[in-house]
Amino acid sequence: MKKAPTGILPILSVDRRSPLPLYRQIYEGYREAIVDRRLRAGERLPSTRSLATELGISRIPILGAFEQLLAEGYFESRVGAGTFVAHSLPDEAPLPDARSTSRSTAGRPGRRVLSEASAVLGDGITPEPWHGGWGAFRVSQPAVDHFPFQVWSALLARHSRNPTRSLLTYGDPMGHRPFREALAAYLRTSRAVRCEAEQIMVVSGSQQALELSARVLLDSRSPVWVEEPGYAGAKDVLTLAGARMVPVPVDDEGLDVSAGIERCPNARAVYVTPSHQYPLGGTLSASRRLQLLDWAQRSGAWILEDDYDSEYRYESLPVSALQGLDRDSRVIYIGTFSKVLFPALRIGYMVLPADLVPRFVRVRDAMDIFPPTLFQAALTDFLTEGHFARHLRKMRQLYRERRTTLVESLSKELGDTVRVLGAQAGMHLVAELPKRLRDRPLSERAAKEGIWAMPLSACYLEEASRQGLVLGYGGTEAARIPEAVRRLRKAFRTG
Amino acid sequence: MKKAPTGILPILSVDRRSPLPLYRQIYEGYREAIVDRRLRAGERLPSTRSLATELGISRIPILGAFEQLLAEGYFESRVGAGTFVAHSLPDEAPLPDARSTSRSTAGRPGRRVLSEASAVLGDGITPEPWHGGWGAFRVSQPAVDHFPFQVWSALLARHSRNPTRSLLTYGDPMGHRPFREALAAYLRTSRAVRCEAEQIMVVSGSQQALELSARVLLDSRSPVWVEEPGYAGAKDVLTLAGARMVPVPVDDEGLDVSAGIERCPNARAVYVTPSHQYPLGGTLSASRRLQLLDWAQRSGAWILEDDYDSEYRYESLPVSALQGLDRDSRVIYIGTFSKVLFPALRIGYMVLPADLVPRFVRVRDAMDIFPPTLFQAALTDFLTEGHFARHLRKMRQLYRERRTTLVESLSKELGDTVRVLGAQAGMHLVAELPKRLRDRPLSERAAKEGIWAMPLSACYLEEASRQGLVLGYGGTEAARIPEAVRRLRKAFRTG
Repeated sequence: MKKAPTGILPILSVDRRSPLPLYRQIYEGYREAIVDRRLRAGERLPSTRSLATELGISRIPILGAFEQLLAEGYFESRVGAGTFVAHSLPDEAPLPDARSTSRSTAGRPGRRVLSEASAVLGDGITPEPWHGGWGAFRVSQPAVDHFPFQVWSALLARHSRNPTRSLLTYGDPMGHRPFREALAAYLRTSRAVRCEAEQIMVVSGSQQALELSARVLLDSRSPVWVEEPGYAGAKDVLTLAGARMVPVPVDDEGLDVSAGIERCPNARAVYVTPSHQYPLGGTLSASRRLQLLDWAQRSGAWILEDDYDSEYRYESLPVSALQGLDRDSRVIYIGTFSKVLFPALRIGYMVLPADLVPRFVRVRDAMDIFPPTLFQAALTDFLTEGHFARHLRKMRQLYRERRTTLVESLSKELGDTVRVLGAQAGMHLVAELPKRLRDRPLSERAAKEGIWAMPLSACYLEEASRQGLVLGYGGTEAARIPEAVRRLRKAFRTG
Repeated sequence: MKKAPTGILPILSVDRRSPLPLYRQIYEGYREAIVDRRLRAGERLPSTRSLATELGISRIPILGAFEQLLAEGYFESRVGAGTFVAHSLPDEAPLPDARSTSRSTAGRPGRRVLSEASAVLGDGITPEPWHGGWGAFRVSQPAVDHFPFQVWSALLARHSRNPTRSLLTYGDPMGHRPFREALAAYLRTSRAVRCEAEQIMVVSGSQQALELSARVLLDSRSPVWVEEPGYAGAKDVLTLAGARMVPVPVDDEGLDVSAGIERCPNARAVYVTPSHQYPLGGTLSASRRLQLLDWAQRSGAWILEDDYDSEYRYESLPVSALQGLDRDSRVIYIGTFSKVLFPALRIGYMVLPADLVPRFVRVRDAMDIFPPTLFQAALTDFLTEGHFARHLRKMRQLYRERRTTLVESLSKELGDTVRVLGAQAGMHLVAELPKRLRDRPLSERAAKEGIWAMPLSACYLEEASRQGLVLGYGGTEAARIPEAVRRLRKAFRTG
């Protein structure tokens, strides 16, 4: 159903000095707005009383105009509901298209030049052939239905009913101070990030964090190491910023730092997911961490650490953030609430090296000034009153169950055909395929069964050295998983 | 007061195979976290019961560790409140600085290379000398205390207590569909914008709208006409994007299009405020509008129309948007709720030429995916249920009163010394000074009186051809205005 704003005054040019009587001016103003399709069928009109007030004229000419518009079928009135634009226009009304042509300015259409930078990603978002369904097994989809909305709603109400002035006016480009205090304490405690509130910048998620980082740290054609396979969203935003992607292979210890140094020793930055490699799910080993920090310090490279779902580990305690080991302030630490709370919240954060704060502040101020305050105020309470810790515990239990069910179902239905990788953490795993099988056709057949099974090869920039399916279980109820895996098996059979 | 998250589990490495007993591992883990300042004085610790569950061990070793930490003064317990990190650390705890030095990796600090593009704006946000107070007469500060928060809070609760799935998961990069429908109807009716919901992209405000436009439309060093004097925020974001600013003078008819053509006939784009020129307050005349559209069509230039506070006109009805006259789809129409509702909301919008939608979608998806959904859902109802129209009427009345008081006070206190410009619309006016007076020293003296009076010359890129004070009255109660103007007069006297 189309929703139209109520009681909004249309553009009417009412001129007392005009020889045309006022009622005629109002009549023609409305008629033109309707014929022009600025006013649409079913839209409610303001009352004649409020219109008279707005226009600063008496009600008499307005009543006259409305009567005529009703008589000619442009308006219709419903008893007790008011006056509306008619659902069918009178016959004599010219067609909008004809009219718009007759009005167009002379001359050929002008050139349409777009930026070169924006062309690199192409136009629009093409649905991938494996987008076959929702839930089983879409990646990065949390169990949003388990979020404590009663609590959340109460916290929003607490801050929106009688807001303090600081919740309403222009805010700090770094974010709401109490929220940054709470976040800093959380990150120090739970992620071993070394930080103060002064270093925390609140953003809309990891995409904006990378966008800002690229603006501050990268020049056009700056080489950036990205994990191969890796996260497409990160590669998109860095590519858009003009950076040159340098794929660096990932093995069981995570990013192969030596291979990166060999391939591009002078990269300006590296994008890395040390706690939970996307998509393979491994953890960057301790020796690789030190090697990466050492290379970065020597070469002057920046490290973009995306700690995207480090909160969920099922077989051990969370691993510390890479940032906590950095003694040269080279790490930009990035986190988001999209996965642990819900994506539509659009709140993420970055921990900046202290000396970079002023530059990031200036760039953020120019780009979108500051983040919305209400969500930050409510999230502060959500963290400090224990709701966040409770939610994490509950979700860890839930995801552990979903993961176990998925691993068992894969083993039961597909046996040795697939090898499960990265099931010890996060909200997805990889079912690696034997060399002889190709993942893309399999994904496409799975999509026909209603199963969203992203091919691992889609995460590579160069030729994929591994084939597999990336299966998200965060948004799929455990009870539905066995049936979903049976359907997935069909895709294997028909192959 | 510092707020810390409650019940968050710190990074503890508990290893059953270690020769160190479990209680000792826990004790040392906490001690290290406190000495490292990852845990801070006063932070609450999880209960021993929930810690045992998280770690998957019995409570006995945890109780032992907690007892020792309490005995040694690292923890303190408060009856009925739980256990906390102690406010003063025991004597033998090494200093954090000493420790962090001893741990640092070898080697000299690495190079710190930032992007050239981000250097153009400098670092941080330097407070200007005229930032002398809040309210009287800060520009762009709406009367946030008059916003109907009871209504708003109820609408938020309606959508946040039992949200539909679409309000939680990843959304459309263009924005929430029902909101875009409502916005399109509002813009057609009230601003004579020719648009469909498909063309509307929801953003965080006019800064993000310009940032996205720059990304899609401008290349490095693309020349862009900007109004002289004009809006600094727009110049900042366009400059950051690498565009070259071409100042084009503004006269009583608005942007001097002929002067622009003479100065730079092949500009890639023009930033313009046709309804209410910032800061002089004039309206772009009809003939200039046609001239601008004609030039843009012939040269292939894009028009960035910022319609920032067009809702408020006091002596005539609102003027139509330039976009409605455009027959070559050259206008990117930009609006925001920051001024008509409140800035901390962070919701604005753009109306895109239909053929540019796919490119904008791709760029927005890479930059921050999509805007927060809850505010859009609540705003849909705010528009369609008539609250918005009511709020606009109320505010128009309020601002008219504030404006009249300010004009009268200026006339009374300063007489012919200043000439008032742009008082017929918006939330600010310009008090133009005679040639012999300089606005900057006046602004600085006003700041010492607690008055925020932005110098008009700050809005120029080149040498200012006019001197004046830009006085915002949106956020200043009428009753306070006469006294504020009396204080402003003191700045004139001491000059």
